[in-house]
Amino acid sequence: MPHITLPDGLPGITGPLAFRPETAKPMRALAEFLLRGPNTLSSADREIIATYTSSQNDCHFCQTSHAAAAAHHLGGTSELASNFALISEIKRDFETAPISAKLKALLNIAGHVQQGGKRVTTEDIARAREEGATDTEIHDTVLIAAAFCMYNRYVDGLATWAPQEQEAYIPMGAHMAHEGYINAPAQKPAPHPETVTA
Amino acid sequence: MPHITLPDGLPGITGPLAFRPETAKPMRALAEFLLRGPNTLSSADREIIATYTSSQNDCHFCQTSHAAAAAHHLGGTSELASNFALISEIKRDFETAPISAKLKALLNIAGHVQQGGKRVTTEDIARAREEGATDTEIHDTVLIAAAFCMYNRYVDGLATWAPQEQEAYIPMGAHMAHEGYINAPAQKPAPHPETVTA
Repeated sequence: MPHITLPDGLPGITGPLAFRPETAKPMRALAEFLLRGPNTLSSADREIIATYTSSQNDCHFCQTSHAAAAAHHLGGTSELASNFALISEIKRDFETAPISAKLKALLNIAGHVQQGGKRVTTEDIARAREEGATDTEIHDTVLIAAAFCMYNRYVDGLATWAPQEQEAYIPMGAHMAHEGYINAPAQKPAPHPETVTA
Repeated sequence: MPHITLPDGLPGITGPLAFRPETAKPMRALAEFLLRGPNTLSSADREIIATYTSSQNDCHFCQTSHAAAAAHHLGGTSELASNFALISEIKRDFETAPISAKLKALLNIAGHVQQGGKRVTTEDIARAREEGATDTEIHDTVLIAAAFCMYNRYVDGLATWAPQEQEAYIPMGAHMAHEGYINAPAQKPAPHPETVTA
């Protein structure tokens, strides 16, 4: 049960975002730019950085929903299962996963940001540069990882409710990937029992 | 030296905020509402929660600048020294500091958010409620602490430059308390230490 009374039926971060629209607006705008704004890093790569950080913070809602968003960015419905498998492999050990050396170097930075800002070393940065990362890409990686240290703590610090099974996150991930973060998904409330007709 | 090339002479977070205006805008708006927006918690209390979280994250720039903002909220120039002393006492051990039982309960929540969202317990929440905290106050405390886990990692994950001595933060704290977070202070960058001439 959540620590405070949140709107019913809204999973994970969407409950507290609906509870406090004043803070939801900048938090949604930040996610939208970081994950879907114009960038030399693909949205798939940025969602993978968000997913990896969330997995290191052990946040079930964020790691599962952003994995679903990344899976949608990486390909169509027929590829979802293999994309989810790739992302699981990255979460388990990104160094041995079949991804670019540059993304590995950025995930290495994100993992250190998750542990604490001072854990990022000049060697981490040099490695990313050697793999072709620009200042802006390094900046954005640090900020995505830092921002998910906020979102993850928001979701779990309020003990929000979230579905356990990965399937529940597939339409959510599609919305995140294709519609974005500014607006919540349209509410489709169940029909009132008295108005249901045969 | 910062990990990426940032505008010269801008301390702490102000360097990366100037580097990336697209992400600066929502990050500034979030800080403005959380710390200065309409609230049943005073801005002084909210700045103290931000300062305490930043001290737990060992972020020198954030804990010193937000301590200065809190000190300005707590009183005029003649009281700054005693206000700084109070804030140091809170950082050292808030449970024995001369502050309200409610603020102690909220700092206890913030400290657990800093360690990780799942560290916040139903006992932490019950204690805050017993001291009169509302759902919105608990929400805002969790989010302030979570947000500073982002700001702190942003500042230190990019290895930004910041003044060491507390005195340098007094005008910055006055700007944060009285002008707010939306606009950067008018540019009067101190000469970079390495370029100071006799």
